Amino acid sequence: MRRTPLAELLQNELERQDFHPRLPGYKRVYEAIRSAIVNRRLPAGSKLPSSRDLARELSASRNMIVAAYDQLQAEGYVSSQTGSGTYVTDVLPDGMSDIYPFNEPHTHDANAHNDSVVLSQRGLRLTREQGYVAYEVQPLALSGKMDLLNFPVKTWQRVQNQIWRREDVALYDYDSNGGYAPLKKAVADYLRISRGVVLDPEQVLITAGTQQSLDLISRMLADQGDIAWVENPCYWGAWSSFYANDLDIRPIHVDQEGMSPTVEDFASPAPKFVYITPSHQYPTGAIMSLARRRQLIDYAQQSGAWLLEDDYDSEFRYSGRPIASLQGLAHESGIGRVLYMGTFSKVMFPGVKLSYLVLPKTLIEPFKTALYDLYRPGQLHLQASLAEFIEQGHFTTHIRRLRQAYAQRRTILLAVLNKTLAHRVEQIIDDAGLHLVVKLPAHTDDVEVANRCHSEGVSVKPLSRYYIGATDVRGLVVGFAYVDASDLVTCGQRLGQVLQEYL
Amino acid sequence: MRRTPLAELLQNELERQDFHPRLPGYKRVYEAIRSAIVNRRLPAGSKLPSSRDLARELSASRNMIVAAYDQLQAEGYVSSQTGSGTYVTDVLPDGMSDIYPFNEPHTHDANAHNDSVVLSQRGLRLTREQGYVAYEVQPLALSGKMDLLNFPVKTWQRVQNQIWRREDVALYDYDSNGGYAPLKKAVADYLRISRGVVLDPEQVLITAGTQQSLDLISRMLADQGDIAWVENPCYWGAWSSFYANDLDIRPIHVDQEGMSPTVEDFASPAPKFVYITPSHQYPTGAIMSLARRRQLIDYAQQSGAWLLEDDYDSEFRYSGRPIASLQGLAHESGIGRVLYMGTFSKVMFPGVKLSYLVLPKTLIEPFKTALYDLYRPGQLHLQASLAEFIEQGHFTTHIRRLRQAYAQRRTILLAVLNKTLAHRVEQIIDDAGLHLVVKLPAHTDDVEVANRCHSEGVSVKPLSRYYIGATDVRGLVVGFAYVDASDLVTCGQRLGQVLQEYL
Repeated sequence: MRRTPLAELLQNELERQDFHPRLPGYKRVYEAIRSAIVNRRLPAGSKLPSSRDLARELSASRNMIVAAYDQLQAEGYVSSQTGSGTYVTDVLPDGMSDIYPFNEPHTHDANAHNDSVVLSQRGLRLTREQGYVAYEVQPLALSGKMDLLNFPVKTWQRVQNQIWRREDVALYDYDSNGGYAPLKKAVADYLRISRGVVLDPEQVLITAGTQQSLDLISRMLADQGDIAWVENPCYWGAWSSFYANDLDIRPIHVDQEGMSPTVEDFASPAPKFVYITPSHQYPTGAIMSLARRRQLIDYAQQSGAWLLEDDYDSEFRYSGRPIASLQGLAHESGIGRVLYMGTFSKVMFPGVKLSYLVLPKTLIEPFKTALYDLYRPGQLHLQASLAEFIEQGHFTTHIRRLRQAYAQRRTILLAVLNKTLAHRVEQIIDDAGLHLVVKLPAHTDDVEVANRCHSEGVSVKPLSRYYIGATDVRGLVVGFAYVDASDLVTCGQRLGQVLQEYL
Repeated sequence: MRRTPLAELLQNELERQDFHPRLPGYKRVYEAIRSAIVNRRLPAGSKLPSSRDLARELSASRNMIVAAYDQLQAEGYVSSQTGSGTYVTDVLPDGMSDIYPFNEPHTHDANAHNDSVVLSQRGLRLTREQGYVAYEVQPLALSGKMDLLNFPVKTWQRVQNQIWRREDVALYDYDSNGGYAPLKKAVADYLRISRGVVLDPEQVLITAGTQQSLDLISRMLADQGDIAWVENPCYWGAWSSFYANDLDIRPIHVDQEGMSPTVEDFASPAPKFVYITPSHQYPTGAIMSLARRRQLIDYAQQSGAWLLEDDYDSEFRYSGRPIASLQGLAHESGIGRVLYMGTFSKVMFPGVKLSYLVLPKTLIEPFKTALYDLYRPGQLHLQASLAEFIEQGHFTTHIRRLRQAYAQRRTILLAVLNKTLAHRVEQIIDDAGLHLVVKLPAHTDDVEVANRCHSEGVSVKPLSRYYIGATDVRGLVVGFAYVDASDLVTCGQRLGQVLQEYL
């Protein structure tokens, strides 16, 4: 079938940027057209083909094209006249440059508002930014397919069956206690020993994932318009949750010692809370220094801000001493303003959807109430199975096995990269986690590099996209945990070959 | 141990109102003290005992007392001076009458604001109203313990094991497709046949419970301050979700034909959406008439409002024709402004935490994106197991068995009540669902009646508490589904004996 020139253009655009397998189809079409408009390849006044025709030409579903057109129209890139067609608008909407318009909330939306907008402003924005958020998918895998062969599925099945055979009627009900008591105790014991968290089991709340923990915190500790500090670059999942709860998000610079607020930051009106990943900053891998930890703890105490410590992957430290939690350090100083978070998605598997939140005592009862009220938690068979899995010792064994496997994978990847690139990669500073960061020279187009990698079958994320606002920093976030050793060599070599052109 | 007079007073207060087993301990202490203050049994200027002393005297944990004091202080009932103690304040906070201050948002909170307030306004309000929300717990059981013996646990275990044995690595990952495709198909087939919903499988979104569906809708279709219509009386879970998302909630009167907006309601600025339970209004049991359905569908079409149809228990209709969904009716008229919701918590078990949302086609892609972005869904083994359970025919068999069991339980409860009360109970109009409503004469204190029932070991909910704002309507919401036949006779008799005094 012959394609129209426009369809050809879009097809090229789609192929160029089709690097993220999770980005939904309509977003890819949307991004392709949007990019063509922004780059003037589709000039103002151009008529777009009908959704039916374009769907046929791209062999896509019509719904997908309609959704893409709707979003473009909602954002003011195109406008449509009944009976006449859809045209590229004369003037690009405000803030619609390729720079992420973080500090211009709503203005473009307000301009673009018209009858066809069916989504709320927050809904529009959440889905529009999803292109960015999609970079954030955890766990990171260099190739598309996950390798979870380390997971002891037989043992897990056996434990689950033990729980179901109990025929405990209470496990079928909602969970109105903020978690299954034996699981809270198991988590408390684990955190006390492994992470130096100071806590009683009653301070533990079991949630259905870190997103739920963040959502609950946003609602319980902050109102709309309240300030929240986040690291810059940051974990997009946290951004989404804070954004959906209408908080005023302030990006704070991160250096090798972690979050680094300036004098001006400290002098500004205090945030309700500060979201940090001190053990292993996401995504840079920086470990927060003791001085910075003390500084933030002091600041929290003086300003009344809460510290949200997200300890998302501290299980995976391959050398040196593990770094104790900031919560424990604060507790030593008699300061109880830390909410400590962790997850089972890295040490069990992502879809297990069980996380934990360690609360200061004053917050236990209100948070428990709100958790029940807002989410009606359940899954008590799962919680009981995990408690049993931990108590029977399988959890510790599994973490040890994972740590060895991941350390090995990390070593392999580094060796392959160093060999291919003859040590031209800037030294990776940390020795932990499930991903590493390859720095690129300033102003390299790391999105283009990521696209190139993708076309070679290697999935990496451009570091610049984790930043809020403009940045000189360029690099790639490279996950290695879920790729087996042989694939890792191949992926590492391909990645190295692409990088050769940019280093 | 001798108690102080104040401890004695609080203990009495606690015993009087300790009727809901799920209300957390600190809320009970809070309510006891608050009630004593409002009723002037604790006059202004009274000194409260120290949290340590009161904890000892009530044999409660000190954390519980501290949490109760904190909330009282945050709301302005008491104030504390360092080194001096805690005193009942002179002036009751605004809006702090016993009438639910629904139409006076924030004023009391703003007045009560002081340094000790650690929760956000929305957080405070969510937890303060939890006393009301706790009435809402589903499933309703006349006695505390659930009877789930009808659940085919062996079959469910077998199906789950089949899924785990597949060792399908994709099931361990997050769910980025808005649900496991075979489950979407199974749900679509079921809804098409059983509920007359018009849909393709791609319109189904699998969520982790109705609360998540409501939360997603609130965020995607409405911004803060946007209007949402709810039924009055209403399902508190919906209220909590809309409230947490900062919507302007408008309660709309319900009569025997379901939601009944007035001419003024229709003439007011249109809501973003209308939340309705047309098949079986919660909690009154009213079935929405065809005329009302058409009226709302027309209104949605004219005003641009969305209709959220919550079909939470339509599986349980014991006589007469099942009522087809409003979604299907709207579709016949060519109107696609209905979002249809249902849940597996009633037909499987509450803790399973799987629900579904049927979306108009234009909303599929953005909702799928936001679902992933905000909640990172998972639990694909569970979704796959349920799909398999449905495909193998166990689901249909189980619903049939439940329907018979529940019909029988309903008949028994009605027979016992009618016998004890010699048919003085106002006729129950519907013949469906998992609960029935016993009407009481206007101005009866149905909270007191519920307390009395509770002290007889029978758990029922006061109907008046489901209303937003003042109402003359009084009654009891009586769940029968999860109580076995013999307990049901005992519970029914005790309930009847209590009711004799009020009818």
